[in-house]
Amino acid sequence: MASTRFLEDLDAHSYADYTSTGQGLVLIPTGATEQHGPHMPLGVDAMLSRAISAAAAEDLDALVAPVFAYGYKSQPRSGGGNHRTGTTSLSAQALIAQTKDVVLELFRHGIRRVVVVNGHFENYQFLYEGLDLAVREARAGGLDDSRAMLLSYWDFVDDATLEAVFPDGFLGWDIEHGGVLETSLMLHLHPEKVDMSRAPDHPPAELTAYDVFPEDPARTPGSGCLSSPAGATAERGELLLSTVRSGIVRAVTSEFGK
Amino acid sequence: MASTRFLEDLDAHSYADYTSTGQGLVLIPTGATEQHGPHMPLGVDAMLSRAISAAAAEDLDALVAPVFAYGYKSQPRSGGGNHRTGTTSLSAQALIAQTKDVVLELFRHGIRRVVVVNGHFENYQFLYEGLDLAVREARAGGLDDSRAMLLSYWDFVDDATLEAVFPDGFLGWDIEHGGVLETSLMLHLHPEKVDMSRAPDHPPAELTAYDVFPEDPARTPGSGCLSSPAGATAERGELLLSTVRSGIVRAVTSEFGK
Amino acid sequence: MASTRFLEDLDAHSYADYTSTGQGLVLIPTGATEQHGPHMPLGVDAMLSRAISAAAAEDLDALVAPVFAYGYKSQPRSGGGNHRTGTTSLSAQALIAQTKDVVLELFRHGIRRVVVVNGHFENYQFLYEGLDLAVREARAGGLDDSRAMLLSYWDFVDDATLEAVFPDGFLGWDIEHGGVLETSLMLHLHPEKVDMSRAPDHPPAELTAYDVFPEDPARTPGSGCLSSPAGATAERGELLLSTVRSGIVRAVTSEFGK
Amino acid sequence: MASTRFLEDLDAHSYADYTSTGQGLVLIPTGATEQHGPHMPLGVDAMLSRAISAAAAEDLDALVAPVFAYGYKSQPRSGGGNHRTGTTSLSAQALIAQTKDVVLELFRHGIRRVVVVNGHFENYQFLYEGLDLAVREARAGGLDDSRAMLLSYWDFVDDATLEAVFPDGFLGWDIEHGGVLETSLMLHLHPEKVDMSRAPDHPPAELTAYDVFPEDPARTPGSGCLSSPAGATAERGELLLSTVRSGIVRAVTSEFGK
Amino acid sequence: MASTRFLEDLDAHSYADYTSTGQGLVLIPTGATEQHGPHMPLGVDAMLSRAISAAAAEDLDALVAPVFAYGYKSQPRSGGGNHRTGTTSLSAQALIAQTKDVVLELFRHGIRRVVVVNGHFENYQFLYEGLDLAVREARAGGLDDSRAMLLSYWDFVDDATLEAVFPDGFLGWDIEHGGVLETSLMLHLHPEKVDMSRAPDHPPAELTAYDVFPEDPARTPGSGCLSSPAGATAERGELLLSTVRSGIVRAVTSEFGK
Amino acid sequence: MASTRFLEDLDAHSYADYTSTGQGLVLIPTGATEQHGPHMPLGVDAMLSRAISAAAAEDLDALVAPVFAYGYKSQPRSGGGNHRTGTTSLSAQALIAQTKDVVLELFRHGIRRVVVVNGHFENYQFLYEGLDLAVREARAGGLDDSRAMLLSYWDFVDDATLEAVFPDGFLGWDIEHGGVLETSLMLHLHPEKVDMSRAPDHPPAELTAYDVFPEDPARTPGSGCLSSPAGATAERGELLLSTVRSGIVRAVTSEFGK
Repeated sequence: MASTRFLEDLDAHSYADYTSTGQGLVLIPTGATEQHGPHMPLGVDAMLSRAISAAAAEDLDALVAPVFAYGYKSQPRSGGGNHRTGTTSLSAQALIAQTKDVVLELFRHGIRRVVVVNGHFENYQFLYEGLDLAVREARAGGLDDSRAMLLSYWDFVDDATLEAVFPDGFLGWDIEHGGVLETSLMLHLHPEKVDMSRAPDHPPAELTAYDVFPEDPARTPGSGCLSSPAGATAERGELLLSTVRSGIVRAVTSEFGK
Repeated sequence: MASTRFLEDLDAHSYADYTSTGQGLVLIPTGATEQHGPHMPLGVDAMLSRAISAAAAEDLDALVAPVFAYGYKSQPRSGGGNHRTGTTSLSAQALIAQTKDVVLELFRHGIRRVVVVNGHFENYQFLYEGLDLAVREARAGGLDDSRAMLLSYWDFVDDATLEAVFPDGFLGWDIEHGGVLETSLMLHLHPEKVDMSRAPDHPPAELTAYDVFPEDPARTPGSGCLSSPAGATAERGELLLSTVRSGIVRAVTSEFGK
Repeated sequence: MASTRFLEDLDAHSYADYTSTGQGLVLIPTGATEQHGPHMPLGVDAMLSRAISAAAAEDLDALVAPVFAYGYKSQPRSGGGNHRTGTTSLSAQALIAQTKDVVLELFRHGIRRVVVVNGHFENYQFLYEGLDLAVREARAGGLDDSRAMLLSYWDFVDDATLEAVFPDGFLGWDIEHGGVLETSLMLHLHPEKVDMSRAPDHPPAELTAYDVFPEDPARTPGSGCLSSPAGATAERGELLLSTVRSGIVRAVTSEFGK
Repeated sequence: MASTRFLEDLDAHSYADYTSTGQGLVLIPTGATEQHGPHMPLGVDAMLSRAISAAAAEDLDALVAPVFAYGYKSQPRSGGGNHRTGTTSLSAQALIAQTKDVVLELFRHGIRRVVVVNGHFENYQFLYEGLDLAVREARAGGLDDSRAMLLSYWDFVDDATLEAVFPDGFLGWDIEHGGVLETSLMLHLHPEKVDMSRAPDHPPAELTAYDVFPEDPARTPGSGCLSSPAGATAERGELLLSTVRSGIVRAVTSEFGK
Repeated sequence: MASTRFLEDLDAHSYADYTSTGQGLVLIPTGATEQHGPHMPLGVDAMLSRAISAAAAEDLDALVAPVFAYGYKSQPRSGGGNHRTGTTSLSAQALIAQTKDVVLELFRHGIRRVVVVNGHFENYQFLYEGLDLAVREARAGGLDDSRAMLLSYWDFVDDATLEAVFPDGFLGWDIEHGGVLETSLMLHLHPEKVDMSRAPDHPPAELTAYDVFPEDPARTPGSGCLSSPAGATAERGELLLSTVRSGIVRAVTSEFGK
Repeated sequence: MASTRFLEDLDAHSYADYTSTGQGLVLIPTGATEQHGPHMPLGVDAMLSRAISAAAAEDLDALVAPVFAYGYKSQPRSGGGNHRTGTTSLSAQALIAQTKDVVLELFRHGIRRVVVVNGHFENYQFLYEGLDLAVREARAGGLDDSRAMLLSYWDFVDDATLEAVFPDGFLGWDIEHGGVLETSLMLHLHPEKVDMSRAPDHPPAELTAYDVFPEDPARTPGSGCLSSPAGATAERGELLLSTVRSGIVRAVTSEFGK
């Protein structure tokens, strides 16, 4: 087995050895190209889902497929809205088709257990549709043991970790875009890509209970962050990663076995 | 103005009078055909979104379009899963296309303000895509003042109402499928369609933080309900309806004016 | 077996009992949201196909799925044209996809015999495509005994009934939009939704042998009716319903057995 | 103007001269590849719509685009059914897309008046959708004077001609597949492609008022013809062509001017 | 076996005899409607692929399906660009769908060996996708021995022929649009459709190594030809046809047997 | 201007500064996940197109969008075929949609000049379609100055470089998959990802002039390389990069200005 967990860095012959066991497991990280405030780069979602997948892959003896660098349209209530400059998104059709295609290819290789690790809130339902279509088609075509999982990494942050990361109280996942969670993880995983001197510090965005079309730019803070990342630290990022990693590993093992 | 709020019951000439003012507002209720336990019918989501839309339409002098009776695939973590008998769902493609088509037709009629009132959790992102495509196309085609809103009715239940409806504590929207909220609303709005003698009484489903493909029937209680509807009453339904109605009316008025 | 024929009013557990026999039969009524003159509501096609399906279902021990409330674009030569205000139509893509999806779901439930009951002329070919795709996919996926029928209800009006309903001579189905047939059926089935005092009385529309794009509003009478509904009566509606009902029941029984 | 009416035989420079007047008119013949009994070839529908288009084009100073040689799935009630060997059909998606694409290209060339001449019953609604999408898109893109017509050639056969061609009485268009009409036209236009010694002579098919899925081969006569072509003659074909040609020319002139 | 190689000229009963052997082979010629200079008609690509297919079919005892008369968008580097008047092209979606549909129909007839003979450079990848989808679907549906080939006819011109046809040196396939190769073949196969008195004589187009969007008309010579057809002769066309025919026959026999 | 050329590493505020000039230029590198022999990783095409884009971006003061890590199905005549384990490809639909979506987003940001830099032969026509659709839609929507280019990097290798890199003669681009060109570029750009001790050394693959469906594994060498990479060196890679970089810069400058 090669010394890398990343499919793009592995040669095909080593990968074929891996798949030939019939026990292979591949994680597909999915992100977005989306504004994340003035202090973090556009690729945060892709970087985090890729890094978290790689960490979990170590424990699962799994491989990590090339990250989906583009995601579904950013929405104002979770990502600031798709009207922002820099946010570069896919339509539903494109994301569904890509998900279906890639998962079917992995099944064709002999991989029977695929996990999609989502790092961009807005992606979830379209990844779900792509996975549903892929698993149906694989099974209709005779690959009866094809299975898949779908998860968003933040759903594995437990209460204890939340308390540690948000000592003043957690205000909800919806406003975490560009906030303490993502910034802490970036400070731990890619500190050179964060510039805390540019981090905004403003009250949390007051989100409405609905969406409007076309988007109303006034509904998103000028920074693009839905809450302040001021409390972010690399230590908190390390704790978050550790919690998420172990949670994902437990979940995958529970469903797919060792 | 005709004496009905429902587009399907209105004649075209009266509707044309309504749209000719340029101030028309149409609500589109969207539901699903989905199992809701042994005590409630398959059409609950469509019935509730339609009734709530009609109530809000009274206050808004709006009309209600024919309900979307079919919705996106039920998911185990919010609706029991699409493997259940009776659940009859649409693909992403079909729901997105229907949403886009219907909204564009309303714009063509002269309606410039459309509100999609969602009654089935799984629909949201596909309605969003359909609305986004419709508003973009309408505006590219010259209807520059076309606007739309998207909301799910439960997002307008406030904390005071939650406390009143769930005196023992609210366990979360995710397990409300077939539970106290929907059953109370049905007892208030369509009591003849509920048979509380068949209502299950079991502990809340323990939901995982992820989805699996293909679905695992063992993850959903046999009843199809994710929590017990035992605490449902018509009075609680009336309170819920009142809260949701006024919340929606406030939101629409806030965005679209009187 | 529950006391309703309507799927949306049935609970999933009773439905599962019904499907478990392997002898289940489901009718899918399809209509439109389309102008039907000043004397009838926009929902006529959906209302009629639903009521006719329910009547036939009684005799066939069948169930009726939620009606397709939206149909294909109204055409000037059969429905007055899609440019009319109030007419709210689907594209080919949306209607084909919805038909395919819903029929496949019924097959998944264990239903092996599906009948689509069309109530809107323009729908037919798109329902045909959806059914063809669904039955092919079901059979390719192993459901080898999946079968379906497609019919338009007016094709079951026999000559004797035509003579009774049109004592002065029948002028052809093409101009029956908003005319005697539909109005009579509505007067019988939903009299409260018809206002004969608003019924137009003008000569039949002179239809061309072709279509034009974009539609030319001058080709449709201002009323939206292609012929006068003046001769409509509830008695004629009752006769029409009786003829159509028994014709459909004979046809379905002939193909699918008792 | 070049000496041919067929676009495929014309060079681009001559065509550009033709379009540059702004008065150009192009007819698009559409047919099918479909069994037409043992006495006629698979290409009958395409051959007839192409020849009829060419005849009308002479009178209209129009051009004829390459024929659509493949059509929508043959249906048992109009063409014998798509299960027959030799019948080679398109899905709705393919036919709609091709229609839209070709019409938009003609508009781009400067042609503002397009007529689709249908020669295969089952095509009509899909051609309609393609035309509707094309004209909408052309106009949304600024080609405000783009117009189109859609017609099926048999809709221009008048009563006098019917009486002359069917002296024993006309039994209806539905059973004319491979019968007297098409065979007479072929005997007049392409006699070398008809072998009357192989023409079947059996009673008309008894068509049901509905369709079944999958198709039931027993519903179509073994010959593939829905009625006997025994009465077909070249003279009757000549009469039919003359009637249809003049009818189409009148209709097009009436809509589009000289 | 009937005396024609063209499916459109064959009756369905004779075709059924042909397919019933299980050894049938069908060639599908694909072309375009595309400007080919002032000296040749718009249908060159379709005419050539059809004629070449017919020639090869003689040697292979094969049949030839109706030609695809419309192809993918002409590109400046191979066909002069899609902005030219007369060029009438399909989108990727339409061409892929048509290819998939037609190939699947032939498989349904009992044909197990299909060859697509391409005559328009820009088509290749879309024909490839259509064939890939068709063969996958046929095999997933149980037609396990379905096979197909895809080729462009000019890939069978060998070096000796190139030297004979281009005695002054061959400049590359990319600039052959409307040049010596196509013109020679047309002079041999359809001399009445070529007017050498209108043939342009200008230096070869200087093609860039990239494409631009929107197309820049200045990049294509005014004639529409990418090189001069001055050296074209019927004799060279005969030689080209002979070489291509025998090359295709050898390739097909090598893959599919006699 | 920020210190990175990679959009994913740039924050949205700095990017907005860049786009606000109206002179922005973005390169989109596109690759594949495809076997490249035992000595190189699956991500070669994506790595090379990204690195080449970054190099050109330096000279052009341009930015580089996140690479398209997945490409169209590998074909035996250019990439070894899509049946190989490790090759993970997109359908035409997915690649076209993704291209269209991403290009339209960049136009929305204020970027008016987009260059797609292709690194995987099979992608070209699908990128072309996506670009054509995007530019048409952007212009129809009012962005009249939107422009794009499409190129494959190897088309900028000139004859002098070919002679230097292939002193024994260049055998053609078609067999360069996994050969000297790609391996040399990788040895220069990512030497740590190449293991020359695993490089195969076998005669070039003898490619046929056609494709077969389903693919025939015997047509590709076991190594997955279509020719031997034995002659690859980092120096040759450096030369290739330099040539390609300057060629692309010249081409872009020539079309889009400085």
